[in-house]
Amino acid sequence: MTISVAVSGASGYAGGEVLRLLAGHPDVTIGAITAHSNAGSRLGELQPHLHGLASRILEDTSVENLSGHDVVFLALPHGASAEIAAKLPEGTVVIDAGADHRLEDAAAWEKFYGSDHAGTWPYGLPELPGQREKLKGANRIAVPGCYPTSALLALTPGFAGGLLEGNDVVIVSASGTSGAGKAAKVNLIGAEVMGSMSPYGVGGGHRHTPEIEQGLSNASGEPVTVSFTPTLAPMSRGILTTATARVKPGVGSEELRRAWAEAYDDEPFVHLLPEGQWPTTKSVQGSNHAAMQLAFDDHVGRVIVTCAIDNLTKGTAGGAVQSMNIALGLPETAGLNLQGVAP
Amino acid sequence: MTISVAVSGASGYAGGEVLRLLAGHPDVTIGAITAHSNAGSRLGELQPHLHGLASRILEDTSVENLSGHDVVFLALPHGASAEIAAKLPEGTVVIDAGADHRLEDAAAWEKFYGSDHAGTWPYGLPELPGQREKLKGANRIAVPGCYPTSALLALTPGFAGGLLEGNDVVIVSASGTSGAGKAAKVNLIGAEVMGSMSPYGVGGGHRHTPEIEQGLSNASGEPVTVSFTPTLAPMSRGILTTATARVKPGVGSEELRRAWAEAYDDEPFVHLLPEGQWPTTKSVQGSNHAAMQLAFDDHVGRVIVTCAIDNLTKGTAGGAVQSMNIALGLPETAGLNLQGVAP
Amino acid sequence: MTISVAVSGASGYAGGEVLRLLAGHPDVTIGAITAHSNAGSRLGELQPHLHGLASRILEDTSVENLSGHDVVFLALPHGASAEIAAKLPEGTVVIDAGADHRLEDAAAWEKFYGSDHAGTWPYGLPELPGQREKLKGANRIAVPGCYPTSALLALTPGFAGGLLEGNDVVIVSASGTSGAGKAAKVNLIGAEVMGSMSPYGVGGGHRHTPEIEQGLSNASGEPVTVSFTPTLAPMSRGILTTATARVKPGVGSEELRRAWAEAYDDEPFVHLLPEGQWPTTKSVQGSNHAAMQLAFDDHVGRVIVTCAIDNLTKGTAGGAVQSMNIALGLPETAGLNLQGVAP
Amino acid sequence: MTISVAVSGASGYAGGEVLRLLAGHPDVTIGAITAHSNAGSRLGELQPHLHGLASRILEDTSVENLSGHDVVFLALPHGASAEIAAKLPEGTVVIDAGADHRLEDAAAWEKFYGSDHAGTWPYGLPELPGQREKLKGANRIAVPGCYPTSALLALTPGFAGGLLEGNDVVIVSASGTSGAGKAAKVNLIGAEVMGSMSPYGVGGGHRHTPEIEQGLSNASGEPVTVSFTPTLAPMSRGILTTATARVKPGVGSEELRRAWAEAYDDEPFVHLLPEGQWPTTKSVQGSNHAAMQLAFDDHVGRVIVTCAIDNLTKGTAGGAVQSMNIALGLPETAGLNLQGVAP
Repeated sequence: MTISVAVSGASGYAGGEVLRLLAGHPDVTIGAITAHSNAGSRLGELQPHLHGLASRILEDTSVENLSGHDVVFLALPHGASAEIAAKLPEGTVVIDAGADHRLEDAAAWEKFYGSDHAGTWPYGLPELPGQREKLKGANRIAVPGCYPTSALLALTPGFAGGLLEGNDVVIVSASGTSGAGKAAKVNLIGAEVMGSMSPYGVGGGHRHTPEIEQGLSNASGEPVTVSFTPTLAPMSRGILTTATARVKPGVGSEELRRAWAEAYDDEPFVHLLPEGQWPTTKSVQGSNHAAMQLAFDDHVGRVIVTCAIDNLTKGTAGGAVQSMNIALGLPETAGLNLQGVAP
Repeated sequence: MTISVAVSGASGYAGGEVLRLLAGHPDVTIGAITAHSNAGSRLGELQPHLHGLASRILEDTSVENLSGHDVVFLALPHGASAEIAAKLPEGTVVIDAGADHRLEDAAAWEKFYGSDHAGTWPYGLPELPGQREKLKGANRIAVPGCYPTSALLALTPGFAGGLLEGNDVVIVSASGTSGAGKAAKVNLIGAEVMGSMSPYGVGGGHRHTPEIEQGLSNASGEPVTVSFTPTLAPMSRGILTTATARVKPGVGSEELRRAWAEAYDDEPFVHLLPEGQWPTTKSVQGSNHAAMQLAFDDHVGRVIVTCAIDNLTKGTAGGAVQSMNIALGLPETAGLNLQGVAP
Repeated sequence: MTISVAVSGASGYAGGEVLRLLAGHPDVTIGAITAHSNAGSRLGELQPHLHGLASRILEDTSVENLSGHDVVFLALPHGASAEIAAKLPEGTVVIDAGADHRLEDAAAWEKFYGSDHAGTWPYGLPELPGQREKLKGANRIAVPGCYPTSALLALTPGFAGGLLEGNDVVIVSASGTSGAGKAAKVNLIGAEVMGSMSPYGVGGGHRHTPEIEQGLSNASGEPVTVSFTPTLAPMSRGILTTATARVKPGVGSEELRRAWAEAYDDEPFVHLLPEGQWPTTKSVQGSNHAAMQLAFDDHVGRVIVTCAIDNLTKGTAGGAVQSMNIALGLPETAGLNLQGVAP
Repeated sequence: MTISVAVSGASGYAGGEVLRLLAGHPDVTIGAITAHSNAGSRLGELQPHLHGLASRILEDTSVENLSGHDVVFLALPHGASAEIAAKLPEGTVVIDAGADHRLEDAAAWEKFYGSDHAGTWPYGLPELPGQREKLKGANRIAVPGCYPTSALLALTPGFAGGLLEGNDVVIVSASGTSGAGKAAKVNLIGAEVMGSMSPYGVGGGHRHTPEIEQGLSNASGEPVTVSFTPTLAPMSRGILTTATARVKPGVGSEELRRAWAEAYDDEPFVHLLPEGQWPTTKSVQGSNHAAMQLAFDDHVGRVIVTCAIDNLTKGTAGGAVQSMNIALGLPETAGLNLQGVAP
């Protein structure tokens, strides 16, 4: 069975990463490749690393061009995906890499994004409790944000297991600059970012905060509040998230470790590393894997979980393809049996 | 007046940075330059960036070679500085870049360093409340650890002002790899660290934890407990510290900002940036400055302070020279009027 | 048909990259994974990016452990491969990532490597004129050096076409630091290499010089002399080679371009980019592709060819697997249909 | 004596580096700081590393604002400097960081820059034979291009000494990305440039080619033709130039070395390293020094000279300040006694 797939936003980083993975997917035929500008260009000129697709010509991002495929990946500016999805043929599986359909709470969306809530689609993070079932047979998928992917994988086992306090979660993440997109902005140029680290979106205003709180609250059954601080790191890809939460009285190191191990031992892409081994973002570069480690600091009563992902792979396109596989009933790991690229 | 200075550990990063700063210090004559190995080598071969000192020959690190100077900078392995200091002529100002004399509590030293406490010397971070006075006329100075420098500068104003809760401080820092020293270890080679971030010393065991708690507890007047997680960033120099603490009830954004502004407005080297501007480690590269910004996240009741320093300059050698200036009654900024080197 | 493969030197960069590619090769079963030290360790501890092989235990590099496989990849110190190969069962395909069997001329080997010549095995660069035929059915393969791979791909078409002068070829290459191996040396640590470029092996002494001259002389039919200067670049992977040769009188831009196009148009892994597009090492990161572009500078009468490869992939392991496929009669691209990993 | 200096282009990299150096210059008072956009902004917002000038307000780049100073540094788009210089008060020393006045040959200018030649000003590279004299008392200075600075320092001694053949010089340079300016262009963003190397301006069309040929021809007394290939390296600052020229018959290694040693032994900023030591760009980061090494490859009859500079310091602003010192009769090293910033 071959699945026909159309990919929009093909000239950007998310679209490029989707194409990279689909090019190696045994069950996929890549159909229309679209971009809202650059229509008519050879893909090889915009994404020279996609050797196998170099001669493909980009088309306009339009309903006509996207129609007629089994699956459509959208990587569009805010507000655009709902409209296009509504016009696509019935039965098309629409996978949105944008934020529009991630949040369940309309008020949270309006507060952080300042526009009307477009609705909620099944959340593309199958490792969350119960989420895999919700993705089976889904024909709408909201790809999680990159930081939330790492943060939710890092802390959900503890909340699902009732081991952590829901107030006062503190998360600090460092991301490679591809997370900011292929935008020509002075603060993102190489001379500015190389050899430097800097924070942004500090103080609770970052849009991934409600998304992280949503996932942890769902796992916990009670509200979880999160302080989230993202920082920009001098590398192209990767996210290292350091997430800490207070541990409930009486919970100890072994119980914590057991909860994470049980949550992930059977997962193909998420790994609690052997004790003593700490995750590096390079170890998951270009792969759909997440590597993490936890430590219980009983001096302060917090568990500290460090989780490494590739922001473009597990954090965006890999998560999207993984969810697509589940939705279509394909082997979940199809096209994603990739080792990390290191060094 | 010219001060004669000897520098040990001259082939390492800390010693090299001390020499770089002293080479431009108007009141200093550099005397003996020593290293425990490499004696007899030209400095230019080991520290090719020190053009003005290229022809100097390294001597043995011995009491004889270090004697006869007004000031001696020590950058030696643990346990070595106390012995050498005790043998140096009376009146020599001894400045120790190592950890041996930073901690006040012998039990904390023994717990984290596993050896006998060597005693406590005046702590070389003059911006701490009351610390400048203690450094005047001092003839022993313990240079702070690099992470503690950034963490203490980040949070002390809030604790000194009684605005923050002392339990549950959470600090995550990212450092350039020079912080690990000039050691040939596989995990530190370029191919391993470039393009990657990774955590280490997670869970409360990092030796800078007691040092940070000491400083914050002193400022607060009450015990402060800290969760500290260091991470390795793909750059040579720089530390970006993200430090959060819970704000006492009733304390708001303006009161917080006022406390930091008052603490630092008259300081030559520590800057609370204008609102809206966030610190970058590149902006303080090679300079003795610390740049910070704070935000009050009232959703979680925490202040988040981000502080950028150069781990080798304000975090080590610059802090050392600054303290030396104070101890000797020189202008505090002598030899340290350096802009950051950016881009 | 499944091919059983043993890989030695599995804890190093070359061995790790071979394993990464073999893990995704449809026709391969990975057998013994060996390392001369680290025997008994879990591979996941030494090569954390190889998720699919994390639980494998490293064995000793011995004839016993390597025997019984269809193919054995060797990544050993100089002088070791010939001995091991001689003892392996008849019919084993032995692929040597080391230098021992690359050179045809014993005198050149002894001059540059200072030991006895171990003999010559078929050279694993199938894109060289006539080389593919020599690899078919081969049971010994010498994997080319990384720099020679890029240099030979860059210039061979011109020499094979009789368009270039053989004396006075000038080549300057920049390589990521993984090319130096996983060695703990001070000059290779991150703090030294990040943010810096430096040359080494300057003046004709670099061991890849005779290898490059060999390939170009073979293509030309006449002796070619090369000035080769390698430089170390602040990145983990990648080689950018800038190769220039004097163009024979009467040869023009179109004729040059035609020679390169004809040489590579039907090659699966080597690409002359469309005019106006210049190669980047990132575009071939982690892939077996080589991208190049040429320009004729008639002001000086030289063609300048720039060629980008990944030193570990096309420059080492990818070239090895590609040659293995040819030797065994498998599709040449099996296991190598990888896009570059960018950004 | 204090010199009043105005700096235009203050928000860019060249202007920022000039300000960094002038801020530490004992004889300079910084007057107007101008930028063609950003007028009214605080300098600290645009150049946060210039702590000592953070509160300065940028003014318009106009003749009024620039007048009334002893020295004016211009860093403007092509074609703008001549006009402004002509309107400044008589006696003002005008130092142009742009290309407009570097070339002596109007035809070369028009060929490579496509506009009318603005005239020739004294070239700001005092280490060239006879150039220091021309800069004494000069009131117009053309700051050399960054690549030409490194290339001319690398090869001039050999040409001045009549030891090298003038045809067929081959130069390949690698530069940090600040060389491209503070421009927001997609190909310069961090995600594109980090972990990658790429060539540009290949084939003789780069504008620095005529500038390099001019300097070498002047030194030689005969025409010198150069193949120059620039490449972009994943670092913020630094240029490593690898320059090769054919050595005249009968010239040997010792004679070559003597020529370079004699050329530079008494120079404060240019160093032929001790034999066996190779230059790194990090060793001259942020300093006005150039470090080089040469090797004679008698196998091909070429000398290979590798030269490292900081593109923004010796390659732009440091060279400018050095030339200013000479023009004004100040000590040549005033404000430039800076060690490199390493690691």
